[in-house]
Amino acid sequence: MNYASSAAVALARVRDAAPLVHNITNYVAMDITANALLAVGASPAMVHAAEEVQEFVGIASALVINIGTLSPSWVDAMRKAAARAGTTNTPWVLDPVGAGATPYRTAVAQELSRLRPAVVRGNASEILALAAGRAGVKGVDSTDSSEAARELAAELARELGCVVAVTGAVDYVTDGDRLLAVANGHPMMTRVTALGCTATALIGAFLGVSSDPLVAAAHGLGILGLAGEIAAQEASGPGTLRLHLIDALYSMDSATVEAGVRIHVPAERS
Amino acid sequence: MNYASSAAVALARVRDAAPLVHNITNYVAMDITANALLAVGASPAMVHAAEEVQEFVGIASALVINIGTLSPSWVDAMRKAAARAGTTNTPWVLDPVGAGATPYRTAVAQELSRLRPAVVRGNASEILALAAGRAGVKGVDSTDSSEAARELAAELARELGCVVAVTGAVDYVTDGDRLLAVANGHPMMTRVTALGCTATALIGAFLGVSSDPLVAAAHGLGILGLAGEIAAQEASGPGTLRLHLIDALYSMDSATVEAGVRIHVPAERS
Amino acid sequence: MNYASSAAVALARVRDAAPLVHNITNYVAMDITANALLAVGASPAMVHAAEEVQEFVGIASALVINIGTLSPSWVDAMRKAAARAGTTNTPWVLDPVGAGATPYRTAVAQELSRLRPAVVRGNASEILALAAGRAGVKGVDSTDSSEAARELAAELARELGCVVAVTGAVDYVTDGDRLLAVANGHPMMTRVTALGCTATALIGAFLGVSSDPLVAAAHGLGILGLAGEIAAQEASGPGTLRLHLIDALYSMDSATVEAGVRIHVPAERS
Repeated sequence: MNYASSAAVALARVRDAAPLVHNITNYVAMDITANALLAVGASPAMVHAAEEVQEFVGIASALVINIGTLSPSWVDAMRKAAARAGTTNTPWVLDPVGAGATPYRTAVAQELSRLRPAVVRGNASEILALAAGRAGVKGVDSTDSSEAARELAAELARELGCVVAVTGAVDYVTDGDRLLAVANGHPMMTRVTALGCTATALIGAFLGVSSDPLVAAAHGLGILGLAGEIAAQEASGPGTLRLHLIDALYSMDSATVEAGVRIHVPAERS
Repeated sequence: MNYASSAAVALARVRDAAPLVHNITNYVAMDITANALLAVGASPAMVHAAEEVQEFVGIASALVINIGTLSPSWVDAMRKAAARAGTTNTPWVLDPVGAGATPYRTAVAQELSRLRPAVVRGNASEILALAAGRAGVKGVDSTDSSEAARELAAELARELGCVVAVTGAVDYVTDGDRLLAVANGHPMMTRVTALGCTATALIGAFLGVSSDPLVAAAHGLGILGLAGEIAAQEASGPGTLRLHLIDALYSMDSATVEAGVRIHVPAERS
Repeated sequence: MNYASSAAVALARVRDAAPLVHNITNYVAMDITANALLAVGASPAMVHAAEEVQEFVGIASALVINIGTLSPSWVDAMRKAAARAGTTNTPWVLDPVGAGATPYRTAVAQELSRLRPAVVRGNASEILALAAGRAGVKGVDSTDSSEAARELAAELARELGCVVAVTGAVDYVTDGDRLLAVANGHPMMTRVTALGCTATALIGAFLGVSSDPLVAAAHGLGILGLAGEIAAQEASGPGTLRLHLIDALYSMDSATVEAGVRIHVPAERS
């Protein structure tokens, strides 16, 4: 399968369908998340009140739950929204920001991960923190090993029954059976706040027009990474990178996606 | 009346007076709202605690209430602030973001609209959702007709005793008697988050230096739309559009306003 | 002492150590604060839930408390975090945004200021509002006099046992005994929202790698001001200023800091 071609098709589908993406996300990420979703052609909404999240899930094409600046009332809304997504078959993606940093955060991330997200996206240490709380998962001693994170991601994906995406210099996306690697992105992206959250939100947009969460996640990551590469060519620092990235998401055409997205099935390890 | 000339005068007045604009607004809009108000010469403040909103209304020149990311404690503060604005004669503008999307949101928007705002600004579907809840207003079957929205806006304005601004490709501003059309703006503006909220905030700034809410609303919309047009000339996408728009608000001179703002009294419909 | 040279050394230290800066800050400032901290080489985190702030303080190199969009539950977390910082010897900086505007805000600012911050940073009227509540401090009649603010800042610093930074066209930093003036910055910076908050956050980053809060505060202010000067050379307004400022923080080298930072001991007043 040519994932760069299918990414171009998926991007066209997002632009055509303009899926309504319901975000319950953190304060830092809201602005860039909404702008990235608009730039890519989706229709973002930030709705977090427990009084309305369930109804809003019902009209959304996908749901994004990001615990970055969590507090109890927000977590309550996240629970309600995730539960409703289960009954409405609305695909949703979880971003367990900072899991592992405090017991509260780790516990919330683990609880939400059990509410059947379609995708969980995090960096290696967040995914390891999620995995650490689960029976049958080995210790997280080698937290800085992306090999270890990759293996644990597959175990976690099987146990949660969802796709797990571990992002880093190379991103790995797995459903516990299949595995894809996404090799787009630019180092300067780590100096722009909330680009990990933006990756999660774009996965939401692609989930909204796809029936295969594994491929949708890889598409979202590949297209964001490619936008970052394009932006880096013009940027003189993370300030300009950020806005050129938004422009790149907006103006990226099919030929650019087909030539630039690098998604592949990694070779088996010996 | 030459509304482009009066817009230039009003802009000069904002820059001279630097009206303190008290915003109770949504998380997504705060950053761009504050920056747009600063760029145009106003003095923004974001203050939402029930413990202090009433006192803050007392020192502000205008109040902006935007329900985008509402929750019960925020709505409580909005009620208190709006009520106080009534006793201090502080003009205020309501942005009923997403009215119609959920019953909770619609009910809050309708309740706040009865607290005597000077201006309500929304897109056609938000204004129709507000109007739908009111006695004597016809159904909202033709939700996508801007003609219908324009007619309902006038009915709503008369019933609420305020100005209603329906924004879109062309904006209509009415107090139920008079009607103005504002024909500024650029299509790419719809791909930048919170520019509708920014329009509402700028209306707040112009309310702070004006005694005619109808004209103040048209001025705010015309100047923001013109800034978007100027920005679009240099922008390669919504990322660069956004920042050039802020620059345009900052550097726009009287001649540019007089030549570029397009506000007129629309011809009677037959 | 050559403070420009020591600023260059301190900046290198921030980039090497990447101090984790824990922010409990306002909604408007979160985005630019996080981006500025990342650009300068620090590692920002926004964490405000009472359920986890104490543990997070324990892993952070510095804490930033900013009351801009305060509400009771946030103030509760600020109290807990500040108290914990006292037991873990984590340096922290207080930004009393808007102190003086409402009694609630002033009372919260005064209460937090007594919890032993390493640095308090505010504009003249905020520092005067803090000082006004304290025994033995004279009236604040001459609120617009930076001379008065400078004198009151020294009194306040002695009483609180911390460093007080009064920022304006020239910034003054004092521990009640020593006094430094920082003469960097550009007037257009006042038209970008939350740059005062950003100054406070950068002070946090420098506190995280320094044992002298007076000098750390001056370094943070000098480097932010210098970034603003560099950005202003390319900016056509506050929109472009903001992003070039982020780029300048990211790409500023030692020679630029040594040549551009202007920190000095002001001459005694007669």
